[in-house]
Amino acid sequence: MDHNAEPITADDFERAAAGILPAEIWDFVAGGSGAETTVAANRAALESIFLLPRILRDVSACSTRSTLLGRPVDLPVATAPVAYQRLVHPDGEAATARATAAAGIPFVASTLSSVPLEQVIEAGGQVWFQLYWLRDDAATLDLVRRAEKTGCDAIVLTVDVPWMGRRLRDVRNRFALPAHIRAANITTSRAAHQRDSDGSAVAAHTSQEFTPALTWSAIDRIRQATRLPLVLKGLLAPEDAAQAVEYGVDAIVVSNHGGRQLDGAVTSIDALPEIVEVVRGNCEILLDSGIRTGTDVLRALALGASGVLIGRPLIWGLAVGGERGAARVLDLLATELRDAMGLAGCADVADARRLRTARVPL
Amino acid sequence: MDHNAEPITADDFERAAAGILPAEIWDFVAGGSGAETTVAANRAALESIFLLPRILRDVSACSTRSTLLGRPVDLPVATAPVAYQRLVHPDGEAATARATAAAGIPFVASTLSSVPLEQVIEAGGQVWFQLYWLRDDAATLDLVRRAEKTGCDAIVLTVDVPWMGRRLRDVRNRFALPAHIRAANITTSRAAHQRDSDGSAVAAHTSQEFTPALTWSAIDRIRQATRLPLVLKGLLAPEDAAQAVEYGVDAIVVSNHGGRQLDGAVTSIDALPEIVEVVRGNCEILLDSGIRTGTDVLRALALGASGVLIGRPLIWGLAVGGERGAARVLDLLATELRDAMGLAGCADVADARRLRTARVPL
Amino acid sequence: MDHNAEPITADDFERAAAGILPAEIWDFVAGGSGAETTVAANRAALESIFLLPRILRDVSACSTRSTLLGRPVDLPVATAPVAYQRLVHPDGEAATARATAAAGIPFVASTLSSVPLEQVIEAGGQVWFQLYWLRDDAATLDLVRRAEKTGCDAIVLTVDVPWMGRRLRDVRNRFALPAHIRAANITTSRAAHQRDSDGSAVAAHTSQEFTPALTWSAIDRIRQATRLPLVLKGLLAPEDAAQAVEYGVDAIVVSNHGGRQLDGAVTSIDALPEIVEVVRGNCEILLDSGIRTGTDVLRALALGASGVLIGRPLIWGLAVGGERGAARVLDLLATELRDAMGLAGCADVADARRLRTARVPL
Amino acid sequence: MDHNAEPITADDFERAAAGILPAEIWDFVAGGSGAETTVAANRAALESIFLLPRILRDVSACSTRSTLLGRPVDLPVATAPVAYQRLVHPDGEAATARATAAAGIPFVASTLSSVPLEQVIEAGGQVWFQLYWLRDDAATLDLVRRAEKTGCDAIVLTVDVPWMGRRLRDVRNRFALPAHIRAANITTSRAAHQRDSDGSAVAAHTSQEFTPALTWSAIDRIRQATRLPLVLKGLLAPEDAAQAVEYGVDAIVVSNHGGRQLDGAVTSIDALPEIVEVVRGNCEILLDSGIRTGTDVLRALALGASGVLIGRPLIWGLAVGGERGAARVLDLLATELRDAMGLAGCADVADARRLRTARVPL
Ligand SMILES: Cc1cc2nc3c(=O)[nH]c(=O)nc-3n(C[C@H](O)[C@H](O)[C@H](O)COP(=O)(O)O)c2cc1C
Ligand SMILES: Cc1cc2nc3c(=O)[nH]c(=O)nc-3n(C[C@H](O)[C@H](O)[C@H](O)COP(=O)(O)O)c2cc1C
Ligand SMILES: Cc1cc2nc3c(=O)[nH]c(=O)nc-3n(C[C@H](O)[C@H](O)[C@H](O)COP(=O)(O)O)c2cc1C
Ligand SMILES: Cc1cc2nc3c(=O)[nH]c(=O)nc-3n(C[C@H](O)[C@H](O)[C@H](O)COP(=O)(O)O)c2cc1C
Repeated sequence: MDHNAEPITADDFERAAAGILPAEIWDFVAGGSGAETTVAANRAALESIFLLPRILRDVSACSTRSTLLGRPVDLPVATAPVAYQRLVHPDGEAATARATAAAGIPFVASTLSSVPLEQVIEAGGQVWFQLYWLRDDAATLDLVRRAEKTGCDAIVLTVDVPWMGRRLRDVRNRFALPAHIRAANITTSRAAHQRDSDGSAVAAHTSQEFTPALTWSAIDRIRQATRLPLVLKGLLAPEDAAQAVEYGVDAIVVSNHGGRQLDGAVTSIDALPEIVEVVRGNCEILLDSGIRTGTDVLRALALGASGVLIGRPLIWGLAVGGERGAARVLDLLATELRDAMGLAGCADVADARRLRTARVPL
Repeated sequence: MDHNAEPITADDFERAAAGILPAEIWDFVAGGSGAETTVAANRAALESIFLLPRILRDVSACSTRSTLLGRPVDLPVATAPVAYQRLVHPDGEAATARATAAAGIPFVASTLSSVPLEQVIEAGGQVWFQLYWLRDDAATLDLVRRAEKTGCDAIVLTVDVPWMGRRLRDVRNRFALPAHIRAANITTSRAAHQRDSDGSAVAAHTSQEFTPALTWSAIDRIRQATRLPLVLKGLLAPEDAAQAVEYGVDAIVVSNHGGRQLDGAVTSIDALPEIVEVVRGNCEILLDSGIRTGTDVLRALALGASGVLIGRPLIWGLAVGGERGAARVLDLLATELRDAMGLAGCADVADARRLRTARVPL
Repeated sequence: MDHNAEPITADDFERAAAGILPAEIWDFVAGGSGAETTVAANRAALESIFLLPRILRDVSACSTRSTLLGRPVDLPVATAPVAYQRLVHPDGEAATARATAAAGIPFVASTLSSVPLEQVIEAGGQVWFQLYWLRDDAATLDLVRRAEKTGCDAIVLTVDVPWMGRRLRDVRNRFALPAHIRAANITTSRAAHQRDSDGSAVAAHTSQEFTPALTWSAIDRIRQATRLPLVLKGLLAPEDAAQAVEYGVDAIVVSNHGGRQLDGAVTSIDALPEIVEVVRGNCEILLDSGIRTGTDVLRALALGASGVLIGRPLIWGLAVGGERGAARVLDLLATELRDAMGLAGCADVADARRLRTARVPL
Repeated sequence: MDHNAEPITADDFERAAAGILPAEIWDFVAGGSGAETTVAANRAALESIFLLPRILRDVSACSTRSTLLGRPVDLPVATAPVAYQRLVHPDGEAATARATAAAGIPFVASTLSSVPLEQVIEAGGQVWFQLYWLRDDAATLDLVRRAEKTGCDAIVLTVDVPWMGRRLRDVRNRFALPAHIRAANITTSRAAHQRDSDGSAVAAHTSQEFTPALTWSAIDRIRQATRLPLVLKGLLAPEDAAQAVEYGVDAIVVSNHGGRQLDGAVTSIDALPEIVEVVRGNCEILLDSGIRTGTDVLRALALGASGVLIGRPLIWGLAVGGERGAARVLDLLATELRDAMGLAGCADVADARRLRTARVPL
């Protein structure tokens, strides 16, 4: 085996996955909405943020350990909810959940998991359940209660999907799920599998199942159904962050859904500073969309995030090597983060959150 | 037919049109003046504007409906005046007017329409008449009165064409109109058809017919000739917007004429915010030049425009598929706009105009 | 002949000249110093400046006429001093001087003209004499007096050449003048012709002939030798502009010598606004380095320049077509400038100097 | 020999070295950490800084002479500490030290020199000893005392290497030192030579030998061991510069280690201005990372640096031509710096430090 070819970065895994996956599945994972302006901006914005490392601090015991939602984690990272993971590997969410548990960080299981929540839980780590609010309110609240009963540690309500964004790759591909992949957590129509639909079958399915009428009252309804911590995923406006604080959510995820919802939405990292300001420590602030390296995590921490979610890289790892691939991706991230923290003179995550940054237009 | 090849964006239509049209006609449509700095800047400026979507708002009844010049429209969009549309398809303005009427938005008929106004009106929708002030004042005011009599809904006076900009593609091509295409609304010389001219015959013709001496007094003369609402098209300086308000115009179109007049002119979207400020709601503010997607429309609304005009995309649609092509372009725009609005948490156009934006240099 | 190939912009002449000239002569003309950062920045900076055109002004009598050094000119433009013009065409400065006279603008004759001043003067237009201060003071002042006696209209003292910048193309080419080309105005060594020198023979020659010890006292010495108006060419710092005003110079040329002296020097257009501020109308402000189109001239005027100098484009014209080529380049510029002014709503140069600009990072 | 091929810039030497060196050695020299964002930013940041040259100053005696750590130098430059120079040429540090001495500037000898300090000293110029703090404190202080005894002129404590950054090229190459190259100054394990290690053997070795626990108290310990001037190399945060001043260091080197430590670290030139402000002249400020030309040195001086260090260019020179190659690189830099200073109207380094700059986004 050619040593040089062994993946040592998330980008390596991306290239490898691109070479392995069937084109339309690759497109489903890689794609964003519209002109993919936001997908591109996610990376460009992160890369334009430079760090001011500190010196002469003892980093011999440099530790990436932290807490998320008040519970200890080995990294200030969780894996992002990603639907239908069996698309890229037969083991799907079972594998990524095990890899995530082994990495000592929370796994966020999607409503649209292709492996049922009960099996995901078997991986043994912290599991957060990501909730899409269905058109059927009762079924939705059942999902919440089931998540709690099964042993999930938090509910993550995704709030940026009144419907699925126009992902042109999927539209062009008339993308539909293969017969053996399905949303294992919910009883649902066959829309996601009907390729004859005009455009993306997955989008049609989403539109059929999820409500576009969700409002802040949903928070109260979830609170009534469960005592689990509640995370709002998918906000970018400071006004919404302030509102989330008023509604007493435990954490928010600053996110543009990896550029898959509103094309032209601001990048998470650009939105972060103002949100940090209005939140004033009143809830945890996570961030996703474009995080690829330990330096990216450090950028987010330095700008005030409590932690980040990792989306596509985990899927690339899963595609390339199943559980081991996913584990390796998380391993690399842990290595990179500890490396970056130490080189920046940070002995712990608290130090990292005190780093200064400079924005340099390249 | 290859499904992937079916156009699903304006850009797809552009590529298709480029493949179909004779080179010099393509050049006439696509080209801008000089080094086409402004043509390029139009897109770059729009793409550098990012939106801050809002969450947890009921967008189940998300509607793009609005009013323009006080009358209801299905989208806050009109089709821009584009001369000589029979150049790209035998049905010309008859087809685009029908497609525009079907889309529930105003069609702006050019003074240089290749189909007479009376035929355009038959399409049945709202029609605004775009006026180039001729060297012959009486003939000009006749045009205004004819527009009113024929049933037009507004006069759009274009104010950025003392003469035609130096469009180098046309100059190099010695572009002249084919014999069967003519300015059907006016009695005019054959200059536009004489290819032996030094440079662009179309420019020579324009220069022969239109006055370079137009001043603000033109507004009063139009007001005396008609009671139709009056729109000034083609301004970029806030001082001119303020003046337009003083002259009591009903709307202005912030525009650099799609980069076809002054090369190096500022982009409309960059000019917009200061204009919104000086206008203070005292007239409607439309914008064109570079709008291609629903996200672009949302960008313009968020920055304070009442609506936008769409120029070249309509012509691409017409070239590719006649009325159906044009209709499809408008359809896609409607779909994209509703999609973008909903994803941004906007239930209606008023919400869209309250969105915040961030400018990110990419 | 292929009509499309006829040059209609300065850039067309550039391409044509590049195809005609021997490589090392092309390099001498095109090249800048060092990494040519400033050469590239000159264009990038101009292209990032956008104009806010005005509307509804009578531009039927739009005129580019103006004055430079108090005397009427057909354009607010002079041709920049360019050494050794016979390198690119046998007629050299005789041809460009005639073309410039015909264009109704001043010709600036270089100390290093390959045609003697007396012959240049025969062209009949305004001629300004560009002075390099020689190591021999007496010879220098003789040149000044000779310029006045021969009928020149101004002295242009170049102040950014203590020695020639490191132009790497010339160094690599070991560039030396061919035997038949010489500095016709001065008695001088053969250094410029000796190719065996280490690097650029032209640079070696310059270094041998010109003084690197010039100070502000030179101004007084010139004033004592002549009553001609005095122009300082080649400054970029506002402090120097202020000093020039105190020394009572009639005009300054904000210039980085077309990127041929200090690589990394700021662009003229970026330096201009602060200079305009400190000069407060106390002398004329010309600008050169990178001006290629009428829009560029308008940009400079809008930012406060009284006029511009045109360097390389004139030489491209001369190379391609002798006097006619040079004349055509100036013709195009006149056409472009009038076009741009009219489209921007400027009836005259005074209007142009009141235009607003916006800087847009592209 | 083709004259054109003779290297006349550092970039020429880079290309030549790339053509000569074995791939993995080239990679070791050229590479940075992670995505090499900082490596690229180093150049981009320097190139975005433009200078405002001054005019009419006598630069006939323009001199680059200055002092560093209070002692005269021919240029405000030292050669940066670079480990294992025998990797690129058998003469290694013996050659570069001689070339540096001949150039009249200090040579900084690395702890990881492949030629022992005693031999380096024989070159005869000023030598500064760069110190990596070993895990063995006593051995470290022995090194310091040995440096003083051998005749070094300063101690340069490198503070940005708690461990070696993740240099992906080395990791992919499983880079290890060839048997005949070793850290000649220290007694050390064979880790740097063991290619079977997982990743970079050089990184493993560094991690084994150097302490990641260094704190400010190290300064005091060095002060107790020697009376030599002390330089801190590798800081970017103004807070650390202020602290360094309080600890009484003689100089600091603003540096991101040529992009080889924290990927995403700010560029030195971007970090410089704020550091100059807090230091207020209380210690000398050197800068490295990306300096390639005389104009770059001038940029650093203009922004307030006392001088710069040159890393890779020296190694390219050594690789291409041994001592002569290294000498030629320094020669070119001296020529370029004097050229740039004179063209900017600076008679000496003090003038250079008073130049104004403008930041222009390109
Ligand atoms: C293939 C794919 C499927 C996704 N499915 C979901 C999902 O079911 N629920 C959800 O909230 N977010 C979903 N996301 C969004 C991710 O949770 C996350 O916000 C995004 O991927 C982060 O950006 P990144 O991929 O650049 O790290 C999905 C993303 C991808 C790429
Ligand atoms: C081929 C073509 C012809 C045009 N003809 C006219 C016209 O007759 N009258 C007018 O006011 N504007 C005319 N315009 C300008 C458009 O109305 C509009 O301002 C411009 O196209 C908007 O930019 P866009 O094409 O990028 O959407 C024309 C534009 C094009 C491309
Ligand atoms: C080939 C060449 C020769 C030049 N010779 C002179 C000269 O003799 N005296 C002088 O003051 N400037 C000289 N210049 C500089 C020009 O006067 C002018 O500053 C510069 O060319 C303007 O930039 P542009 O070429 O981009 O228009 C020369 C420039 C070129 C390209
Ligand atoms: C191959 C190589 C080896 C280096 N070794 C050392 C070293 O031993 N000690 C040290 O402090 N810095 C070392 N550096 C960093 C340099 O001292 C310097 O900070 C950096 O090279 C400056 O950037 P430049 O190469 O872009 O000029 C090394 C750099 C390179 C390229």
